[in-house]
Amino acid sequence: MKTHTEYLWFNTQSKREYINITSDVREILSKSKINEGMALVSAMHITAGVYVNDAESGIIHDIDEWLERIAPFNPDYQHHNTGETNGDAHLKSLIMHHEVIVPITDGKLDLGPWQQIYYAEFDGKRKKRLIVKIMGA
Amino acid sequence: MKTHTEYLWFNTQSKREYINITSDVREILSKSKINEGMALVSAMHITAGVYVNDAESGIIHDIDEWLERIAPFNPDYQHHNTGETNGDAHLKSLIMHHEVIVPITDGKLDLGPWQQIYYAEFDGKRKKRLIVKIMGA
Amino acid sequence: MKTHTEYLWFNTQSKREYINITSDVREILSKSKINEGMALVSAMHITAGVYVNDAESGIIHDIDEWLERIAPFNPDYQHHNTGETNGDAHLKSLIMHHEVIVPITDGKLDLGPWQQIYYAEFDGKRKKRLIVKIMGA
Repeated sequence: MKTHTEYLWFNTQSKREYINITSDVREILSKSKINEGMALVSAMHITAGVYVNDAESGIIHDIDEWLERIAPFNPDYQHHNTGETNGDAHLKSLIMHHEVIVPITDGKLDLGPWQQIYYAEFDGKRKKRLIVKIMGA
Repeated sequence: MKTHTEYLWFNTQSKREYINITSDVREILSKSKINEGMALVSAMHITAGVYVNDAESGIIHDIDEWLERIAPFNPDYQHHNTGETNGDAHLKSLIMHHEVIVPITDGKLDLGPWQQIYYAEFDGKRKKRLIVKIMGA
Repeated sequence: MKTHTEYLWFNTQSKREYINITSDVREILSKSKINEGMALVSAMHITAGVYVNDAESGIIHDIDEWLERIAPFNPDYQHHNTGETNGDAHLKSLIMHHEVIVPITDGKLDLGPWQQIYYAEFDGKRKKRLIVKIMGA
Protein backbone atom coordinates (compact mmCIF):
# COMPACT_ATOMS: atom_id res chain seq x y z
CA MET A 1 0.00 0.00 0.00
CA LYS A 2 1.27 3.46 -0.94
CA THR A 3 0.11 6.94 -0.01
CA HIS A 4 0.99 10.24 -1.62
CA THR A 5 0.07 13.63 -0.16
CA GLU A 6 0.23 17.13 -1.60
CA TYR A 7 -1.32 20.46 -0.72
CA LEU A 8 -2.74 23.10 -3.08
CA TRP A 9 -2.91 26.77 -2.09
CA PHE A 10 -5.49 29.32 -3.22
CA ASN A 11 -5.77 33.07 -2.81
CA THR A 12 -8.75 34.14 -4.88
CA GLN A 13 -9.36 37.64 -6.27
CA SER A 14 -13.05 37.62 -5.40
CA LYS A 15 -14.97 36.50 -2.34
CA ARG A 16 -16.64 33.60 -4.14
CA GLU A 17 -14.90 31.64 -6.86
CA TYR A 18 -15.16 28.18 -8.46
CA ILE A 19 -11.86 26.74 -9.64
CA ASN A 20 -11.47 23.61 -11.77
CA ILE A 21 -8.66 21.60 -10.13
CA THR A 22 -9.05 18.38 -12.13
CA SER A 23 -5.72 18.77 -13.94
CA ASP A 24 -3.93 19.56 -10.64
CA VAL A 25 -5.28 16.36 -9.09
CA ARG A 26 -4.38 14.42 -12.24
CA GLU A 27 -0.81 15.69 -12.05
CA ILE A 28 -0.51 14.74 -8.38
CA LEU A 29 -1.85 11.28 -9.23
CA SER A 30 0.75 10.82 -11.94
CA LYS A 31 3.53 11.67 -9.45
CA SER A 32 2.11 9.16 -6.94
CA LYS A 33 2.63 6.15 -9.25
CA ILE A 34 -0.55 4.69 -7.76
CA ASN A 35 -2.60 2.58 -10.18
CA GLU A 36 -5.54 1.39 -8.10
CA GLY A 37 -7.03 3.23 -5.17
CA MET A 38 -8.78 6.38 -4.03
CA ALA A 39 -7.90 10.08 -4.01
CA LEU A 40 -9.25 12.22 -1.19
CA VAL A 41 -9.55 15.88 -2.23
CA SER A 42 -10.46 17.93 0.82
CA ALA A 43 -10.59 21.65 1.66
CA MET A 44 -8.78 22.43 4.91
CA HIS A 45 -10.97 25.45 5.70
CA ILE A 46 -14.52 25.75 6.99
CA THR A 47 -15.68 28.31 4.43
CA ALA A 48 -14.70 26.43 1.27
CA GLY A 49 -15.91 23.33 -0.51
CA VAL A 50 -14.86 20.64 -2.96
CA TYR A 51 -17.37 19.13 -5.36
CA VAL A 52 -17.61 17.21 -8.62
CA ASN A 53 -19.79 18.61 -11.39
CA ASP A 54 -19.82 20.25 -14.81
CA ALA A 55 -17.14 22.58 -16.24
CA GLU A 56 -19.81 24.79 -17.85
CA SER A 57 -19.98 28.50 -17.03
CA GLY A 58 -23.79 28.63 -17.01
CA ILE A 59 -24.22 25.95 -14.35
CA ILE A 60 -21.46 27.52 -12.24
CA HIS A 61 -23.41 30.79 -12.34
CA ASP A 62 -26.60 28.86 -11.44
CA ILE A 63 -24.89 27.07 -8.51
CA ASP A 64 -23.64 30.40 -7.17
CA GLU A 65 -27.08 32.08 -7.40
CA TRP A 66 -28.77 29.04 -5.87
CA LEU A 67 -26.35 28.91 -2.94
CA GLU A 68 -26.98 32.60 -2.26
CA ARG A 69 -30.71 31.88 -2.29
CA ILE A 70 -30.70 28.94 0.15
CA ALA A 71 -27.75 30.08 2.33
CA PRO A 72 -27.80 33.88 1.93
CA PHE A 73 -25.50 36.53 3.29
CA ASN A 74 -27.22 37.87 6.39
CA PRO A 75 -25.79 40.34 8.92
CA ASP A 76 -27.76 38.67 11.72
CA TYR A 77 -26.00 35.30 12.01
CA GLN A 78 -24.96 34.69 15.64
CA HIS A 79 -21.53 33.69 14.34
CA HIS A 80 -20.98 37.39 13.58
CA ASN A 81 -20.77 38.15 17.31
CA THR A 82 -17.20 36.84 16.97
CA GLY A 83 -16.41 39.74 14.62
CA GLU A 84 -16.66 37.58 11.49
CA THR A 85 -19.12 38.38 8.67
CA ASN A 86 -18.92 35.03 6.88
CA GLY A 87 -21.74 32.97 8.41
CA ASP A 88 -23.17 32.39 4.93
CA ALA A 89 -19.82 30.95 3.77
CA HIS A 90 -19.99 28.28 6.49
CA LEU A 91 -23.49 27.27 5.38
CA LYS A 92 -22.56 27.24 1.69
CA SER A 93 -19.58 25.02 2.56
CA LEU A 94 -21.85 22.60 4.44
CA ILE A 95 -24.26 22.23 1.49
CA MET A 96 -21.51 21.64 -1.04
CA HIS A 97 -19.25 19.69 1.36
CA HIS A 98 -15.58 20.05 1.85
CA GLU A 99 -14.34 16.80 0.32
CA VAL A 100 -14.76 14.22 -2.40
CA ILE A 101 -13.25 10.80 -2.97
CA VAL A 102 -12.27 10.06 -6.56
CA PRO A 103 -11.67 6.45 -7.65
CA ILE A 104 -8.39 5.60 -9.38
CA THR A 105 -8.34 2.82 -11.97
CA ASP A 106 -5.43 1.91 -14.26
CA GLY A 107 -3.48 4.92 -13.00
CA LYS A 108 -6.23 7.38 -13.98
CA LEU A 109 -8.96 9.35 -12.22
CA ASP A 110 -11.97 7.14 -12.95
CA LEU A 111 -14.42 10.00 -13.62
CA GLY A 112 -17.45 10.02 -15.88
CA PRO A 113 -17.35 11.98 -19.15
CA TRP A 114 -18.52 15.30 -17.65
CA GLN A 115 -17.22 15.01 -14.09
CA GLN A 116 -14.71 17.69 -13.10
CA ILE A 117 -13.31 18.40 -9.62
CA TYR A 118 -13.91 21.94 -8.32
CA TYR A 119 -12.58 23.94 -5.41
CA ALA A 120 -15.35 26.29 -4.27
CA GLU A 121 -14.23 29.39 -2.38
CA PHE A 122 -16.92 31.12 -0.32
CA ASP A 123 -14.77 33.54 1.70
CA GLY A 124 -11.73 34.29 -0.39
CA LYS A 125 -9.14 37.01 -0.83
CA ARG A 126 -6.95 35.15 1.65
CA LYS A 127 -4.65 32.12 1.60
CA LYS A 128 -6.51 28.82 1.82
CA ARG A 129 -5.25 25.26 1.60
CA LEU A 130 -6.52 21.95 0.23
CA ILE A 131 -5.14 18.44 0.70
CA VAL A 132 -4.93 15.72 -1.91
CA LYS A 133 -4.17 12.33 -0.35
CA ILE A 134 -3.98 9.31 -2.60
CA MET A 135 -4.01 5.81 -1.17
CA GLY A 136 -3.66 2.55 -3.10
CA ALA A 137 -1.19 0.33 -4.88
CA MET B 1 -4.05 -4.57 -0.12
CA LYS B 2 -6.68 -5.57 -2.66
CA THR B 3 -9.04 -3.53 -4.82
CA HIS B 4 -12.11 -4.66 -6.71
CA THR B 5 -13.99 -2.49 -9.21
CA GLU B 6 -17.35 -2.93 -10.90
CA TYR B 7 -19.76 -0.66 -12.73
CA LEU B 8 -23.55 -0.61 -12.54
CA TRP B 9 -25.70 0.74 -15.39
CA PHE B 10 -29.10 2.40 -15.11
CA ASN B 11 -31.66 3.50 -17.67
CA THR B 12 -34.68 4.66 -15.72
CA GLN B 13 -38.25 4.81 -17.01
CA SER B 14 -38.96 8.18 -15.40
CA LYS B 15 -36.95 11.39 -15.13
CA ARG B 16 -36.50 11.08 -11.37
CA GLU B 17 -36.10 7.72 -9.66
CA TYR B 18 -34.65 6.35 -6.41
CA ILE B 19 -33.21 2.84 -6.68
CA ASN B 20 -32.09 0.72 -3.74
CA ILE B 21 -28.70 -0.73 -4.74
CA THR B 22 -27.70 -2.21 -1.38
CA SER B 23 -27.96 -5.81 -2.58
CA ASP B 24 -25.94 -5.01 -5.74
CA VAL B 25 -23.14 -3.51 -3.63
CA ARG B 26 -23.32 -6.48 -1.24
CA GLU B 27 -22.93 -8.90 -4.17
CA ILE B 28 -19.93 -6.98 -5.52
CA LEU B 29 -18.39 -7.05 -2.04
CA SER B 30 -18.82 -10.80 -1.82
CA LYS B 31 -17.00 -11.25 -5.17
CA SER B 32 -14.16 -8.99 -3.95
CA LYS B 33 -13.20 -11.34 -1.06
CA ILE B 34 -12.30 -8.19 0.92
CA ASN B 35 -12.92 -8.50 4.67
CA GLU B 36 -11.80 -5.15 6.05
CA GLY B 37 -11.86 -1.87 4.17
CA MET B 38 -14.03 0.67 2.45
CA ALA B 39 -16.42 0.62 -0.52
CA LEU B 40 -16.73 3.76 -2.62
CA VAL B 41 -20.10 3.94 -4.39
CA SER B 42 -20.07 6.88 -6.78
CA ALA B 43 -22.30 8.11 -9.61
CA MET B 44 -20.30 8.89 -12.76
CA HIS B 45 -22.77 11.54 -13.97
CA ILE B 46 -23.39 15.10 -12.85
CA THR B 47 -27.17 14.82 -12.65
CA ALA B 48 -27.38 11.78 -10.36
CA GLY B 49 -26.61 11.09 -6.72
CA VAL B 50 -25.78 8.32 -4.28
CA TYR B 51 -26.96 8.50 -0.69
CA VAL B 52 -27.62 6.33 2.36
CA ASN B 53 -31.05 6.49 4.00
CA ASP B 54 -34.29 4.64 4.64
CA ALA B 55 -35.95 2.09 2.30
CA GLU B 56 -39.41 3.50 3.09
CA SER B 57 -41.66 4.74 0.28
CA GLY B 58 -43.03 7.68 2.30
CA ILE B 59 -39.65 9.22 3.00
CA ILE B 60 -38.58 8.69 -0.61
CA HIS B 61 -41.65 10.66 -1.69
CA ASP B 62 -40.79 13.35 0.91
CA ILE B 63 -37.18 13.57 -0.30
CA ASP B 64 -38.35 14.00 -3.89
CA GLU B 65 -40.85 16.76 -2.99
CA TRP B 66 -38.30 18.52 -0.78
CA LEU B 67 -35.64 18.46 -3.51
CA GLU B 68 -38.11 19.97 -5.97
CA ARG B 69 -38.87 22.70 -3.42
CA ILE B 70 -35.27 23.72 -2.68
CA ALA B 71 -33.80 23.01 -6.13
CA PRO B 72 -36.80 23.42 -8.46
CA PHE B 73 -37.12 22.93 -12.18
CA ASN B 74 -36.81 26.41 -13.69
CA PRO B 75 -36.62 27.28 -17.38
CA ASP B 76 -34.38 30.27 -16.57
CA TYR B 77 -31.17 28.56 -15.44
CA GLN B 78 -28.21 29.93 -17.43
CA HIS B 79 -27.10 26.34 -18.00
CA HIS B 80 -30.05 26.04 -20.38
CA ASN B 81 -28.30 28.33 -22.88
CA THR B 82 -26.36 25.17 -23.79
CA GLY B 83 -29.60 23.57 -24.99
CA GLU B 84 -30.00 21.46 -21.84
CA THR B 85 -33.09 21.72 -19.61
CA ASN B 86 -31.67 19.91 -16.59
CA GLY B 87 -30.23 22.69 -14.41
CA ASP B 88 -32.37 21.50 -11.50
CA ALA B 89 -30.91 17.97 -11.80
CA HIS B 90 -27.37 19.38 -11.28
CA LEU B 91 -28.48 21.22 -8.12
CA LYS B 92 -30.37 18.19 -6.78
CA SER B 93 -27.23 16.08 -7.37
CA LEU B 94 -25.11 18.60 -5.44
CA ILE B 95 -27.41 18.53 -2.38
CA MET B 96 -27.61 14.74 -2.25
CA HIS B 97 -24.00 14.22 -3.39
CA HIS B 98 -22.71 11.78 -5.91
CA GLU B 99 -20.86 9.35 -3.63
CA VAL B 100 -20.76 7.54 -0.32
CA ILE B 101 -18.11 5.48 1.42
CA VAL B 102 -19.40 2.37 3.16
CA PRO B 103 -17.25 0.65 5.80
CA ILE B 104 -16.56 -3.09 5.43
CA THR B 105 -16.10 -5.19 8.57
CA ASP B 106 -15.83 -9.00 8.71
CA GLY B 107 -16.60 -9.21 5.00
CA LYS B 108 -19.89 -7.32 5.35
CA LEU B 109 -21.19 -3.81 4.65
CA ASP B 110 -21.04 -2.31 8.16
CA LEU B 111 -24.33 -0.41 7.92
CA GLY B 112 -26.74 0.50 10.70
CA PRO B 113 -30.09 -1.30 10.95
CA TRP B 114 -31.97 1.09 8.63
CA GLN B 115 -29.20 2.25 6.34
CA GLN B 116 -29.69 1.39 2.68
CA ILE B 117 -27.65 2.62 -0.31
CA TYR B 118 -29.62 4.46 -3.01
CA TYR B 119 -28.89 5.59 -6.53
CA ALA B 120 -30.84 8.81 -7.14
CA GLU B 121 -31.56 9.63 -10.76
CA PHE B 122 -32.49 13.25 -11.47
CA ASP B 123 -32.32 13.27 -15.28
CA GLY B 124 -33.11 9.77 -16.41
CA LYS B 125 -34.46 7.96 -19.42
CA ARG B 126 -30.89 7.52 -20.64
CA LYS B 127 -27.95 5.26 -19.86
CA LYS B 128 -26.06 6.25 -16.74
CA ARG B 129 -23.17 4.58 -14.93
CA LEU B 130 -22.01 4.16 -11.33
CA ILE B 131 -18.71 2.83 -9.99
CA VAL B 132 -18.24 0.57 -6.98
CA LYS B 133 -14.60 0.43 -5.91
CA ILE B 134 -13.69 -1.61 -2.86
CA MET B 135 -10.30 -1.28 -1.21
CA GLY B 136 -9.01 -3.27 1.73
CA ALA B 137 -7.61 -6.62 2.75
CA MET C 1 -2.16 -2.27 5.25
CA LYS C 2 -3.88 -2.01 8.62
CA THR C 3 -7.43 -1.23 9.62
CA HIS C 4 -8.79 -0.25 13.01
CA THR C 5 -12.50 0.00 13.84
CA GLU C 6 -14.33 1.43 16.84
CA TYR C 7 -17.88 2.50 17.54
CA LEU C 8 -19.08 5.53 19.50
CA TRP C 9 -22.48 5.60 21.20
CA PHE C 10 -24.68 8.64 21.82
CA ASN C 11 -27.86 9.19 23.78
CA THR C 12 -28.55 12.90 23.68
CA GLN C 13 -30.63 14.85 26.21
CA SER C 14 -32.36 16.94 23.54
CA LYS C 15 -33.83 16.10 20.16
CA ARG C 16 -31.19 18.04 18.25
CA GLU C 17 -27.61 18.27 19.42
CA TYR C 18 -24.18 18.96 17.91
CA ILE C 19 -21.31 17.12 19.59
CA ASN C 20 -17.63 17.75 18.92
CA ILE C 21 -16.04 14.29 18.53
CA THR C 22 -12.60 15.39 17.30
CA SER C 23 -10.81 14.26 20.44
CA ASP C 24 -12.60 10.88 20.37
CA VAL C 25 -11.47 10.29 16.78
CA ARG C 26 -7.95 11.43 17.68
CA GLU C 27 -7.82 8.92 20.53
CA ILE C 28 -9.01 6.09 18.28
CA LEU C 29 -6.36 7.07 15.74
CA SER C 30 -3.65 6.92 18.37
CA LYS C 31 -4.73 3.39 19.34
CA SER C 32 -4.68 2.34 15.68
CA LYS C 33 -0.92 3.01 15.26
CA ILE C 34 -1.71 4.08 11.68
CA ASN C 35 0.57 6.84 10.35
CA GLU C 36 -0.66 7.38 6.80
CA GLY C 37 -4.18 6.80 5.58
CA MET C 38 -7.80 7.81 5.92
CA ALA C 39 -10.33 7.77 8.75
CA LEU C 40 -13.98 7.21 7.87
CA VAL C 41 -16.31 8.72 10.49
CA SER C 42 -19.87 7.67 9.70
CA ALA C 43 -23.21 7.82 11.52
CA MET C 44 -25.00 4.45 11.48
CA HIS C 45 -28.48 6.01 11.66
CA ILE C 46 -30.60 7.76 9.06
CA THR C 47 -31.54 10.74 11.24
CA ALA C 48 -28.04 11.83 12.25
CA GLY C 49 -25.09 13.40 10.46
CA VAL C 50 -21.35 13.83 10.64
CA TYR C 51 -19.70 17.01 9.36
CA VAL C 52 -16.51 19.05 9.66
CA ASN C 53 -16.79 22.72 10.61
CA ASP C 54 -16.17 25.29 13.34
CA ALA C 55 -16.28 24.69 17.13
CA GLU C 56 -17.99 28.06 17.69
CA SER C 57 -21.33 28.23 19.49
CA GLY C 58 -22.71 31.02 17.27
CA ILE C 59 -22.26 29.11 14.02
CA ILE C 60 -23.70 25.95 15.60
CA HIS C 61 -26.81 27.97 16.50
CA ASP C 62 -26.90 29.37 12.94
CA ILE C 63 -26.57 25.88 11.40
CA ASP C 64 -29.44 24.61 13.54
CA GLU C 65 -31.74 27.53 12.64
CA TRP C 66 -30.83 27.25 8.96
CA LEU C 67 -31.53 23.49 8.88
CA GLU C 68 -34.93 24.10 10.44
CA ARG C 69 -35.62 26.73 7.78
CA ILE C 70 -34.72 24.61 4.75
CA ALA C 71 -35.80 21.20 6.14
CA PRO C 72 -38.50 22.11 8.68
CA PHE C 73 -40.50 19.95 11.02
CA ASN C 74 -43.80 19.36 9.29
CA PRO C 75 -46.59 17.03 10.44
CA ASP C 76 -47.53 16.31 6.80
CA TYR C 77 -44.54 14.29 5.61
CA GLN C 78 -45.71 11.01 4.04
CA HIS C 79 -43.08 9.23 6.14
CA HIS C 80 -45.29 9.95 9.14
CA ASN C 81 -47.86 7.43 7.90
CA THR C 82 -45.47 4.85 9.40
CA GLY C 83 -46.14 6.31 12.85
CA GLU C 84 -42.84 8.24 12.92
CA THR C 85 -42.72 12.04 13.32
CA ASN C 86 -39.10 12.54 12.27
CA GLY C 87 -39.32 13.24 8.52
CA ASP C 88 -37.44 16.50 9.03
CA ALA C 89 -34.58 14.62 10.74
CA HIS C 90 -34.09 12.48 7.60
CA LEU C 91 -33.90 15.60 5.42
CA LYS C 92 -31.53 17.38 7.82
CA SER C 93 -29.31 14.28 7.79
CA LEU C 94 -29.27 14.28 3.96
CA ILE C 95 -28.16 17.93 3.75
CA MET C 96 -25.38 17.54 6.31
CA HIS C 97 -24.46 13.99 5.26
CA HIS C 98 -23.78 11.04 7.43
CA GLU C 99 -20.03 10.63 6.91
CA VAL C 100 -16.70 12.34 6.40
CA ILE C 101 -13.25 11.08 5.46
CA VAL C 102 -10.39 12.64 7.39
CA PRO C 103 -6.83 12.35 6.04
CA ILE C 104 -4.12 10.98 8.35
CA THR C 105 -0.55 12.22 7.93
CA ASP C 106 2.38 11.50 10.27
CA GLY C 107 0.04 9.74 12.69
CA LYS C 108 -2.23 12.80 13.06
CA LEU C 109 -5.60 13.91 11.77
CA ASP C 110 -4.55 16.23 8.92
CA LEU C 111 -7.18 18.91 9.59
CA GLY C 112 -6.98 22.63 8.91
CA PRO C 113 -6.65 25.05 11.85
CA TRP C 114 -10.40 25.44 12.44
CA GLN C 115 -11.68 22.08 11.27
CA GLN C 116 -13.44 20.04 13.94
CA ILE C 117 -15.43 16.81 13.50
CA TYR C 118 -19.05 16.94 14.69
CA TYR C 119 -21.75 14.35 15.29
CA ALA C 120 -25.11 16.00 14.52
CA GLU C 121 -28.12 14.42 16.18
CA PHE C 122 -31.50 15.28 14.62
CA ASP C 123 -33.72 12.77 16.42
CA GLY C 124 -32.14 12.11 19.76
CA LYS C 125 -33.09 10.95 23.23
CA ARG C 126 -32.31 7.40 22.16
CA LYS C 127 -29.20 5.26 21.66
CA LYS C 128 -27.42 5.91 18.39
CA ARG C 129 -24.16 4.58 17.03
CA LEU C 130 -21.29 5.87 14.87
CA ILE C 131 -18.40 3.98 13.26
CA VAL C 132 -14.80 5.14 13.01
CA LYS C 133 -12.81 2.99 10.59
CA ILE C 134 -9.20 3.86 9.92
CA MET C 135 -7.33 2.35 7.01
CA GLY C 136 -3.67 2.87 6.18
CA ALA C 137 -0.17 1.90 7.16
